[in-house]
Amino acid sequence: MTKNKKINIAVIGASGYTGSDLVRLGLRHPNITFQYLVAKTHAGKSVEAVFPHLGGYGLPDMVDLSAVEWDKVDAVFCGLPHATAHEIIATIPERIKVIDMSADFRLRDPKAYAQWYGGTHNATDLLKTAVYGLSEHYREQLKTARLVACPGCYPTAALMALLPALKSGCIQAEDIIIDAKSGVSGAGRAPKQMTLAAEAGEGLSPYAVTKHRHAPEIEQELGVVAGRDDIIVNFTPHLVPMTRGELVTCYVKLAEGKSADDLRTAMGGFYADKPFVRVLEQGAIPSTQHVRGSNNCLITVFADRIKGRAIIISTLDNLVKGSAGQALQNFNLMFGLAETTGLQQVAMFP
Amino acid sequence: MTKNKKINIAVIGASGYTGSDLVRLGLRHPNITFQYLVAKTHAGKSVEAVFPHLGGYGLPDMVDLSAVEWDKVDAVFCGLPHATAHEIIATIPERIKVIDMSADFRLRDPKAYAQWYGGTHNATDLLKTAVYGLSEHYREQLKTARLVACPGCYPTAALMALLPALKSGCIQAEDIIIDAKSGVSGAGRAPKQMTLAAEAGEGLSPYAVTKHRHAPEIEQELGVVAGRDDIIVNFTPHLVPMTRGELVTCYVKLAEGKSADDLRTAMGGFYADKPFVRVLEQGAIPSTQHVRGSNNCLITVFADRIKGRAIIISTLDNLVKGSAGQALQNFNLMFGLAETTGLQQVAMFP
Amino acid sequence: MTKNKKINIAVIGASGYTGSDLVRLGLRHPNITFQYLVAKTHAGKSVEAVFPHLGGYGLPDMVDLSAVEWDKVDAVFCGLPHATAHEIIATIPERIKVIDMSADFRLRDPKAYAQWYGGTHNATDLLKTAVYGLSEHYREQLKTARLVACPGCYPTAALMALLPALKSGCIQAEDIIIDAKSGVSGAGRAPKQMTLAAEAGEGLSPYAVTKHRHAPEIEQELGVVAGRDDIIVNFTPHLVPMTRGELVTCYVKLAEGKSADDLRTAMGGFYADKPFVRVLEQGAIPSTQHVRGSNNCLITVFADRIKGRAIIISTLDNLVKGSAGQALQNFNLMFGLAETTGLQQVAMFP
Amino acid sequence: MTKNKKINIAVIGASGYTGSDLVRLGLRHPNITFQYLVAKTHAGKSVEAVFPHLGGYGLPDMVDLSAVEWDKVDAVFCGLPHATAHEIIATIPERIKVIDMSADFRLRDPKAYAQWYGGTHNATDLLKTAVYGLSEHYREQLKTARLVACPGCYPTAALMALLPALKSGCIQAEDIIIDAKSGVSGAGRAPKQMTLAAEAGEGLSPYAVTKHRHAPEIEQELGVVAGRDDIIVNFTPHLVPMTRGELVTCYVKLAEGKSADDLRTAMGGFYADKPFVRVLEQGAIPSTQHVRGSNNCLITVFADRIKGRAIIISTLDNLVKGSAGQALQNFNLMFGLAETTGLQQVAMFP
Repeated sequence: MTKNKKINIAVIGASGYTGSDLVRLGLRHPNITFQYLVAKTHAGKSVEAVFPHLGGYGLPDMVDLSAVEWDKVDAVFCGLPHATAHEIIATIPERIKVIDMSADFRLRDPKAYAQWYGGTHNATDLLKTAVYGLSEHYREQLKTARLVACPGCYPTAALMALLPALKSGCIQAEDIIIDAKSGVSGAGRAPKQMTLAAEAGEGLSPYAVTKHRHAPEIEQELGVVAGRDDIIVNFTPHLVPMTRGELVTCYVKLAEGKSADDLRTAMGGFYADKPFVRVLEQGAIPSTQHVRGSNNCLITVFADRIKGRAIIISTLDNLVKGSAGQALQNFNLMFGLAETTGLQQVAMFP
Repeated sequence: MTKNKKINIAVIGASGYTGSDLVRLGLRHPNITFQYLVAKTHAGKSVEAVFPHLGGYGLPDMVDLSAVEWDKVDAVFCGLPHATAHEIIATIPERIKVIDMSADFRLRDPKAYAQWYGGTHNATDLLKTAVYGLSEHYREQLKTARLVACPGCYPTAALMALLPALKSGCIQAEDIIIDAKSGVSGAGRAPKQMTLAAEAGEGLSPYAVTKHRHAPEIEQELGVVAGRDDIIVNFTPHLVPMTRGELVTCYVKLAEGKSADDLRTAMGGFYADKPFVRVLEQGAIPSTQHVRGSNNCLITVFADRIKGRAIIISTLDNLVKGSAGQALQNFNLMFGLAETTGLQQVAMFP
Repeated sequence: MTKNKKINIAVIGASGYTGSDLVRLGLRHPNITFQYLVAKTHAGKSVEAVFPHLGGYGLPDMVDLSAVEWDKVDAVFCGLPHATAHEIIATIPERIKVIDMSADFRLRDPKAYAQWYGGTHNATDLLKTAVYGLSEHYREQLKTARLVACPGCYPTAALMALLPALKSGCIQAEDIIIDAKSGVSGAGRAPKQMTLAAEAGEGLSPYAVTKHRHAPEIEQELGVVAGRDDIIVNFTPHLVPMTRGELVTCYVKLAEGKSADDLRTAMGGFYADKPFVRVLEQGAIPSTQHVRGSNNCLITVFADRIKGRAIIISTLDNLVKGSAGQALQNFNLMFGLAETTGLQQVAMFP
Repeated sequence: MTKNKKINIAVIGASGYTGSDLVRLGLRHPNITFQYLVAKTHAGKSVEAVFPHLGGYGLPDMVDLSAVEWDKVDAVFCGLPHATAHEIIATIPERIKVIDMSADFRLRDPKAYAQWYGGTHNATDLLKTAVYGLSEHYREQLKTARLVACPGCYPTAALMALLPALKSGCIQAEDIIIDAKSGVSGAGRAPKQMTLAAEAGEGLSPYAVTKHRHAPEIEQELGVVAGRDDIIVNFTPHLVPMTRGELVTCYVKLAEGKSADDLRTAMGGFYADKPFVRVLEQGAIPSTQHVRGSNNCLITVFADRIKGRAIIISTLDNLVKGSAGQALQNFNLMFGLAETTGLQQVAMFP
């Protein structure tokens, strides 16, 4: 497409953190025009009333979904809660490309969806067409996709570390342990006791141990690469008293005859031409601070002191590469734009 | 009373931060037996289910108010929301002493209550008997009180600084400016968007500018000391990304002929025999960290660079001296116990 | 100048937060080429070794000042500590424009410098030529300046609120009280006990009460507008447990016959054509979160409950509008570029 | 000994967080008299000048070690940096009991000390007599010890989880993975860039991956229980933006025929009579907030979704049970006092 073509966007679920970070990024994307910001409770309000930091940019007021005239829209970003998302996406004209940031189209198997999300999936035909939006790993399919299911923030961090490791044959698929840490914005803007500043602001809390919905998503994608459907991982999330940031520390078994150096080399090779990912040199350790606000993902590989094992650490900003940023990256791929368009924010440190 | 006598306590509103901090302190008070922990939504739950940090101490389960047998109770601590509080307190047998940590009996004038709290006060007879529980300033009245209205956290911090200053004749009652800063626990445990960790955890927010309910409370008490009913102060609160702690920076005019040194001396004199308050030496600056978790209040006085003015800074822990601790201090006075009983926690730093 | 012309930059003092934030912003400035990143202790290191978040952008390694070939440089940003700054700036060829983010050229009176900074100013000739870089207020002078003294972060926040208020005749110059709050990054990257996370991370600390060096700077600029040299303000800074952000709550006396509404209108008028500043509508309250990472400044005006007084609140990001961002804004003005070039980052919330 | 006997204490290294937290706790210990607070740089200062929160308790000023008259001392708590500690402890009269909170007497093998701490151990005779002060596991030996080496904070958290697990035969000694998270106070009061609030205050940082000195200490103690000297664990620490708190998530292999329920039952049995430790019921998840400020340790056990594996989570306050509190607990055992004397602080939440 032409470099300056404007694409008309509707954001559905614009009053959450994912929606607002998409707007933050999209305001600096040369091809994006925000046509509709759709919100339910906040319909009728100015953006500034809901998100004061977005005031002054001439954005349209928040509207109810019923106000959207679809012929004015080229693409939809959807940041709704699960279950609601697929019901609404099913009603969007097929001409319009959809980038879904919810969980509804991530699990390919409707039975798995029912098991982990506790409800029937009522858009199984659409589900078959959805492309899993882990940009670096589904690049070709994304270019022609109509419906993209953006990965969860944890799965993005974990799979960026594990997929190329497994694909390269350097690690085993057994006994993969993912100790995951997330900032509080990952829990969303709906007030909950657990994420009050007084509760979460000065302490560390493991949660959803053995029960988090991001585990089956990780297992599904590892299974695709390994050609197996029986992979079970340990995924243990922890809530960290910081606003943004996600970091996974993965404990893996090296494949027979492979070393951590082999693994680092393979990973470096895989990501050499991917603009947002850097595999760090031996001994370097990434922190969430090093990616805050950016679409970057930093990865490092260590040989474990336990023989035959390795540690892979991966970090990203949960609202950017873990959500709105990756959604925009997928949008770029779907519309034939340069992958980095509108995503060149340098990480903000301190 | 005898030193080891046990006093049976009911805490009404035990599922809030004020209630739980009262239990934290009361567990180490030699005269307290927790007979009832009353909560509405959480009735029927173990304490541990609501407050994991209070597990293992043999506390009774939370119960509904209807389960309380009043003849088993000697004193009630009430941590209910305003409006609810006075309705319930009105039903408590008169034999039982009541320490109210809510706002309902703080303003002596029912019209002021109606204006600032937006409802009619239905216990005006009781209101006439209530003693304002600023322990150091109402010590004698507290010894014989049946109903005590514990001050708000901000008024405690502000009045500890301003009352003796005004009483001593060292400052004027005009143009008193109170720039107040509070940690997030002051906003309570009910989930609100403004106090989510993602919103309040990494930023400073002024709020309720010119509209905060603690302003008339401060003005009332300054008026008592000044013998006037027309005092208006500037009270501007700010939400600070910390769990506990309150600090007020007061900007005042010195009285004709008085210096900041006079003021410091007068304040030091007033608090010399008060165990929880320390007026710091010239140049020393207190922080909220220096009082965290304790019932202490630290105060300092500076000469302003603007001629004829002074700065008074006062800090305390909003949940302790600003609420549950002062309630316990009042309890001690009411029951003839040593004022410091159960309140000797040293501040926790770092 | 032509829109795409590249300007060669040297950053002196590139290893501090001010320097690194300038690089973060400058990397997205279409006219900037970073020719030299000058640091003392870190000379010889890669940028990534000092600031991991700046890795991968092809920046030059850090070098010692002695390595700079001045004929390759068009402009210098200086982020050195005070005293060091003016000594070094005095050695830079006059052809090169200098944007100084240090304190050395802020106070026009060398005696004031000696009094507050404790040393002799050895570049008093240069001092006479320096333009005070409060962009919105010295716009015309900045366009032709060779040496710009960027204001301190606190003076920027305070003067953005107070200068147009005073200029408009709506407030008096007497008894101005500035209660200031800053995030910890304002204290710089040199390790100090007071800014350790364990000390400053969970508490509020007033500091430098009546002694902060930003007071005379504020007084100087208020004096310029008022045409007086005897203005004394109360400036009381507080360290807040957040990384970035600055907010000043100013307590002022309205001029005879003027109201807070007059003041708000006057301020709104002054800033109507200034792209980074917004005067909020009546009742709106800004937070540091609403400007984080951006070059924006938000201001609000309230009528005080005390008759004849008003409250002005101003907030900005101390490292951006309070330092590196404003430096870049001045650079744009000095080189005839659009004022907003490279500074269009939307604030990052949450 | 008699219940009210006073024991004269010298704290060496009183200006660090460990030393100050010992004083915080000791001030409420009925048998402790602080005779000497020894500090090097701060010798001659009042306690209040170094730790404002400890002002007003009548503590002696800080003194240099040379000022200590040993015949006035019954017991020494040592909070010095490693290497310095053993040199000084070697000079203390043998009559005096020593509780060392440094690292110098933790590793029994001087070669391991040299390898991990990088210097020769010059008090190997003393080393042979030192008892490892993990109170619940060395209770009997502690009762008669003269020199106690208090464990590191991480080893305490990890060993509280792993020792009884291994001892019970429920888990294997192979492939133990300890993902550890600590608050910033664990890094001490010496200013370092990594622990500045601007760097560590709003982000998560893995550090010392595969290189942390607490790994060999954990391996040593697991080896004692397993009767082996070849145990290697994965120990990966992460710095968390909170002041206090430590939590380890341990990933372990169950022994043949054992279940996570067996493991939980065994652990519960072991700790049933230990006053500071609670093994939570199935499904309960502890947070650092639940132990803050207390000497408590909370542990939970989960069956992993990966067959044959379990997750053990253990949390404590790094400065209390992880340091000064455990030191005091050991002191109680050594002097025949009730184990909980002076350690009954209820955890402070929020």
